[in-house]
Amino acid sequence: MRPDDANVAGNVHGGTILKMIEEAGAIISTRHCNSQNGERCVAALARVERTDFLSPMCIGEVAHVSAEITYTSKHSVEVQVHVMSENILTGTKKLTNKATLWYVPLSLKNVDKVLEVPPIVYSRQELEEEGRKRYEAQKLQRMETTWRNGDMVQPVANPEPNTVSYSQSSLIHLVGPSDCTLHGFVHGGVTMKLMDEVAGIVAARHCKTNIVTASVDAINFHDKIRKGCVVTISGRMTFTSNKSMEIEVLVDADPVVDNSQKRYRAASAFFTYVSLNQEGKPLPVPQLVPETEDEKKRFEDGKGRYVQMKAKRQGHTEPQP
Amino acid sequence: MRPDDANVAGNVHGGTILKMIEEAGAIISTRHCNSQNGERCVAALARVERTDFLSPMCIGEVAHVSAEITYTSKHSVEVQVHVMSENILTGTKKLTNKATLWYVPLSLKNVDKVLEVPPIVYSRQELEEEGRKRYEAQKLQRMETTWRNGDMVQPVANPEPNTVSYSQSSLIHLVGPSDCTLHGFVHGGVTMKLMDEVAGIVAARHCKTNIVTASVDAINFHDKIRKGCVVTISGRMTFTSNKSMEIEVLVDADPVVDNSQKRYRAASAFFTYVSLNQEGKPLPVPQLVPETEDEKKRFEDGKGRYVQMKAKRQGHTEPQP
Amino acid sequence: MRPDDANVAGNVHGGTILKMIEEAGAIISTRHCNSQNGERCVAALARVERTDFLSPMCIGEVAHVSAEITYTSKHSVEVQVHVMSENILTGTKKLTNKATLWYVPLSLKNVDKVLEVPPIVYSRQELEEEGRKRYEAQKLQRMETTWRNGDMVQPVANPEPNTVSYSQSSLIHLVGPSDCTLHGFVHGGVTMKLMDEVAGIVAARHCKTNIVTASVDAINFHDKIRKGCVVTISGRMTFTSNKSMEIEVLVDADPVVDNSQKRYRAASAFFTYVSLNQEGKPLPVPQLVPETEDEKKRFEDGKGRYVQMKAKRQGHTEPQP
Repeated sequence: MRPDDANVAGNVHGGTILKMIEEAGAIISTRHCNSQNGERCVAALARVERTDFLSPMCIGEVAHVSAEITYTSKHSVEVQVHVMSENILTGTKKLTNKATLWYVPLSLKNVDKVLEVPPIVYSRQELEEEGRKRYEAQKLQRMETTWRNGDMVQPVANPEPNTVSYSQSSLIHLVGPSDCTLHGFVHGGVTMKLMDEVAGIVAARHCKTNIVTASVDAINFHDKIRKGCVVTISGRMTFTSNKSMEIEVLVDADPVVDNSQKRYRAASAFFTYVSLNQEGKPLPVPQLVPETEDEKKRFEDGKGRYVQMKAKRQGHTEPQP
Repeated sequence: MRPDDANVAGNVHGGTILKMIEEAGAIISTRHCNSQNGERCVAALARVERTDFLSPMCIGEVAHVSAEITYTSKHSVEVQVHVMSENILTGTKKLTNKATLWYVPLSLKNVDKVLEVPPIVYSRQELEEEGRKRYEAQKLQRMETTWRNGDMVQPVANPEPNTVSYSQSSLIHLVGPSDCTLHGFVHGGVTMKLMDEVAGIVAARHCKTNIVTASVDAINFHDKIRKGCVVTISGRMTFTSNKSMEIEVLVDADPVVDNSQKRYRAASAFFTYVSLNQEGKPLPVPQLVPETEDEKKRFEDGKGRYVQMKAKRQGHTEPQP
Repeated sequence: MRPDDANVAGNVHGGTILKMIEEAGAIISTRHCNSQNGERCVAALARVERTDFLSPMCIGEVAHVSAEITYTSKHSVEVQVHVMSENILTGTKKLTNKATLWYVPLSLKNVDKVLEVPPIVYSRQELEEEGRKRYEAQKLQRMETTWRNGDMVQPVANPEPNTVSYSQSSLIHLVGPSDCTLHGFVHGGVTMKLMDEVAGIVAARHCKTNIVTASVDAINFHDKIRKGCVVTISGRMTFTSNKSMEIEVLVDADPVVDNSQKRYRAASAFFTYVSLNQEGKPLPVPQLVPETEDEKKRFEDGKGRYVQMKAKRQGHTEPQP
């Protein structure tokens, strides 16, 4: 991990880690989907399940990323990725992330054609059954989230501190060759890194301290982003608890050169950030002041997600897939 | 703004800011020129007006770049860009740059064809008149400056093809944080990457084909290179066989800011390159013509290394450690 | 492997592979040298043995880099690294490199102190004996090569401080995919960033302090620069006032692979830099000593531009468009 991967306090950005996770997932699932003779394909990221950042990673540490295919349906692959941080000076190793990603194989000849996935062999029957349940659950959730597409983040003149308008931020990025797969569309990991960057700026503006990613809600990739697009990534704070902030990030793609296609919502997610003091302990965060009806509605929704997640943890139930 | 965007004192490089300004300009003018149905185009930068850096930007600050189209002529677009620095910890915002750029839309099908620019609507009549004046003024200045083209900063004027002087090349690199270890000195791998880059340019200049690295002689790292140094990497061709070229690469470090230390040789190596045709088969290379006594001496030395290595390979002996 | 790692023919640069090899070597040897309790250290690269590139690596392939410690002396570590390329679409794997690197552990507290290396255990006695021979052989070779240090590739031998020759600098850059638009020519912003980089190095060499860009004169982009070109960016100081330096930067493009086109001037500009003290206040700069007639002429021209600009500012006139 290099200085550019981290914030000024030396903590590696959550987005850098998400990018590595996705790279590992894309390699293992592309390899698997091409393991039988047949049409060549590239695996495209369709969804990332909720991910917690269990422990910080620092500049100078070595990241170990390992990936395993844990379930296959007819047209999709589930990959589980583990990230460990290793301090090579002290030998200390820590688990920083466990993530679950879903990929879909797209034909190299025709990017709109989804190919079939070779089935994997399960060491135990239950594994297949559990995988099928995770598959069904995520399918359901993906259908639910699509309607979220409509609204945009617009700038406001002279906002008050602690309001949504005060910290909301957006970033535009012209997609270049290095952002893209062989297919000419953006790597999911590149998009996630940009999303985390915007969320981090929103969080820092709100609480003006050293902030780090605590978790990312499930992200659905509704549609591919092509080379030559301009991507707009917008972030706004939706909810604050005593010691955490929830930020909604929206990704819109704009095919500037191709007039026939309209701007469209490519992905969206909720990031949770915490604020840390010099010793790395969580600090209280200033409470968000929602102003409009929409903001109040989103605050309540965020509170709902927060309470539900807290209940799950206290009940020692497993995080939902 | 990241560590790599800035110098050792934490001030963001002017070049980083200029690059962002141009990106914003290119996006807004490409979008505008494609806003009507018709041939697709990309906006190419034709001119940047004089730009002052009004206040420094620092690592950790957020840069806000906003662009607006302020004038259009038949074939060009004027864009005005403002850059603000925001310290998200204190909330302070400062204007760092105002820039004016001129773009020309080039057809995506034929890069030498300039397309027509859709006219913009002016909120007040005077704005159009003022824009026209700026347009005429810059047109005049562009014509005046073209003659400046003549002179070169070159060690040897008009060298003959196939000589050492013809292909010799050098590169300077300011060591940044991402190039360095925790110790603050340059990773050996970063130095080797730069060495190969220079060797490749020397080889390409010599034989004007697709070239690839075939081998690298042993490299000794005589001395550490520290953060903030300027590194000069120089390459010159020393020897050619029928199908290979040997290039000597020298790495010198110059501690610019620290007056007490002199420029020193940090590493040196011989790279061997081959030239490939479309099918990836080695091509004959033009023979090097050594001119000076030193060049002839180095050519003979290179031949010696070549013959020795060939003998070793044919004798099936192990490569020496 | 990404587009940026490779040349226009799709072959990954040897330098990219050397960088990965060294990264693997640095990680494994730093980890080993810190494996016993004691002073913390970082392994610094001392030598790379001769390396052959056995087979090309291409964009889209996955590189596998594996490293093993094969010998330790009292103060150095030998690491052997293997690189395999894997085509994840076809499953083909090929050995591309075998490399041997020598590292030396340097104390984190005192970078000039070499620490002791914990010994490794050999699976067979002969391995230690063979390693010792390689160790002795490389030690001998390192001593032999040190004398090579003398000669330089330099336009002017030993220039005097404060002259134009003393600080003039140039940089070559091979245009890569990320530098380019969809059209395949270089973004204006990329060119400007490189121009500022060269100007900054000229300014730093001249005054050996922290320097920042104060302004950039109008820049005209005379001609497009295409993918695959080698760009030479040269900077030389033209004028100094009490507290500012003017540097002329010339950009020449050289279509190395395309024989039909000659080297041409693509852009040129004047950058003004100031020197800052620790508190960010401008410092006086050493006065430039022009030597040749050309240099004296350019100094006078620079003075003219300086006086004109100062007059404009004092007359409260608007900066020219």
